[in-house]
Amino acid sequence: MKKERRQFIKKAGIGAAAVGAGLATQVAPAFAKSKKFKWKMVTTWPPHFPMLGEGADKLAQWVEEMSDGRLKISVYGGGELVPPLGGFDAVSQGTVQMGHGAAYYWAGKAPAAQFFAAVPFGFNAQSMNAWILSGGGMKLWEEVYAPFNVKPFLAGNTGVQAGGWFNKEINSIADYKGLKMRIPGLGGKVVAKAGGNAVLVAGGEIYTNLDRGVIDATEWVGPYHDKKMGFYKAAKYYYWPGWHEPGTALEMIVGKKAWMSLPKDLQAIVETAAYRSNMWMLSEFEAKNNAALEELVNKHHVQVKQFPKSVLKDLKKLSKQVLDELAAKDPMSKKVYAHFLNFQKNMNAWNKLTEEQYQTFKYL
Amino acid sequence: MKKERRQFIKKAGIGAAAVGAGLATQVAPAFAKSKKFKWKMVTTWPPHFPMLGEGADKLAQWVEEMSDGRLKISVYGGGELVPPLGGFDAVSQGTVQMGHGAAYYWAGKAPAAQFFAAVPFGFNAQSMNAWILSGGGMKLWEEVYAPFNVKPFLAGNTGVQAGGWFNKEINSIADYKGLKMRIPGLGGKVVAKAGGNAVLVAGGEIYTNLDRGVIDATEWVGPYHDKKMGFYKAAKYYYWPGWHEPGTALEMIVGKKAWMSLPKDLQAIVETAAYRSNMWMLSEFEAKNNAALEELVNKHHVQVKQFPKSVLKDLKKLSKQVLDELAAKDPMSKKVYAHFLNFQKNMNAWNKLTEEQYQTFKYL
Repeated sequence: MKKERRQFIKKAGIGAAAVGAGLATQVAPAFAKSKKFKWKMVTTWPPHFPMLGEGADKLAQWVEEMSDGRLKISVYGGGELVPPLGGFDAVSQGTVQMGHGAAYYWAGKAPAAQFFAAVPFGFNAQSMNAWILSGGGMKLWEEVYAPFNVKPFLAGNTGVQAGGWFNKEINSIADYKGLKMRIPGLGGKVVAKAGGNAVLVAGGEIYTNLDRGVIDATEWVGPYHDKKMGFYKAAKYYYWPGWHEPGTALEMIVGKKAWMSLPKDLQAIVETAAYRSNMWMLSEFEAKNNAALEELVNKHHVQVKQFPKSVLKDLKKLSKQVLDELAAKDPMSKKVYAHFLNFQKNMNAWNKLTEEQYQTFKYL
Repeated sequence: MKKERRQFIKKAGIGAAAVGAGLATQVAPAFAKSKKFKWKMVTTWPPHFPMLGEGADKLAQWVEEMSDGRLKISVYGGGELVPPLGGFDAVSQGTVQMGHGAAYYWAGKAPAAQFFAAVPFGFNAQSMNAWILSGGGMKLWEEVYAPFNVKPFLAGNTGVQAGGWFNKEINSIADYKGLKMRIPGLGGKVVAKAGGNAVLVAGGEIYTNLDRGVIDATEWVGPYHDKKMGFYKAAKYYYWPGWHEPGTALEMIVGKKAWMSLPKDLQAIVETAAYRSNMWMLSEFEAKNNAALEELVNKHHVQVKQFPKSVLKDLKKLSKQVLDELAAKDPMSKKVYAHFLNFQKNMNAWNKLTEEQYQTFKYL
């Protein structure tokens, strides 16, 4: 404080003689607080991408409002400053202070990261929040990112995603044989185990690939986003549910050095803004997806289909194989997986009496 | 700004001549920011009541951290400053700046408030959040509280509650006839319609009433709280699900004058802290209820039972009657109810493909 006081007096350009003790004590702390931070946040989303990129924009806006401009965060779409999937490295190396995306994008660096985004037949949004925020998940997530000097925060959720757009019907697991589907991550590994051909296609090229028959199927997000992509013009069937992403968590990441440079009040502001983003995003998804789905069905005559239970059962079996293999290869994944499974067991028992029953109210 | 500058100069006790223009411009905003607020928050909960009162404590703590002590909120348990159900009036009249509780406690003043806490066979936590935050619900809630100069914020959710503790089995709706049950609010009205005797008993007296047979049944919250109340020693059956409170929202309320007195940054801090509280509380409930339930079953040999579908069906029919009557009597309730029903219709369609399917994963 004393140093700051001296600096204040120096910067203010007034001699000690002109400054009463009362003035200095009153003003110095306020002045110290006025230190301004300008941060950059890189995201995995196209600039201002609905809901997901918007969530990042809003997060920055809330931080600026709460800090009264003391922390200004410039948000960059994927590719504007670093490539869309270059965000983790950029934050890790301190090139930028923050990132916004989803943990499964960093599977190549930290395979266990995938548990904190989406696991096939894993958690929905509510259980994901409970696991990470109150069930011990956050400690594990921090452990997974610690070697990279990156600090994770929960900052959004898509809710249960769609199963995807298909140009052939899925009546049994055998229908996956030879199916060329755009599906990344663990879901893709499951489709591959089912005999499918899981391919990666950049967002901007999916529609053309689907339309030209280069791929037979694709998953993306849910009705609100899928409608904008125009997939209904290139595929017959819209399958449900998104077993591969039943509640995808989004993340905000902050570089350790940047985090440590913030005073405690700004740390609390950044963390709390992430929570707000988490809640805002899920609520937007839940409130807007159904209207988009109705438009797809009523205006664009999309055929909504559900995966047969037998297919889901087979896919779940294959998902377990994929996760077991992941755990066998990577000790950190093994540790996180065990914790995840235990929490899942509890949530299953709990949901049986609560949320599962709630879902039957509409049929009474 | 100019006025603040003058005030600063005056308060700092230095004459204009001694102050360089550079000093005044640099310091005045920082000084204006250092204005400190001391607020009181009254709650409907016993002091530091697990999860619910804790949520209020944490909310205050987060605001203090984020504002670096510029806004200090002292939290009072129900009865410490005003009676537990006197909070709304105290905030409305400006006696205190803030409150924490649940909107249905104010049904006597504003019947429509009940929609923003819990409706029998109404929303679960996820849909409640979506409705209020992204579906237009908040605008209506603000309208309901506006005549009282009170501003509402979403600040917690219990998730699906328990159906309650019973000393007789519920096999058909006829079993409600003459049943003396502690169940307040809209749920109580439904039980009354079923021929039951819905009574109000203060929290501290429920156990004794149940133990002595003064009442045959009681609802409370969920396993974590019910275990602490010792109900398992006084009742045989623990019924599920809590059809009367499938996702009870908690609120933070702020008096209009107090709210307007805050600078914009502190307003953003208070609002964002409420979001964090909302998410924290639900996650705590979800993460901790099952362990408590397991203890009740395995250690205390509680008999967990589910209401038969036929009973739930009848209760749902009666709930509709109760809500229709509420809407017929009160124009604001009618307006909110119509909006609520429309959102519910959409959520039902959406959940059919998403969360409902998710709840079947565990059986695959």
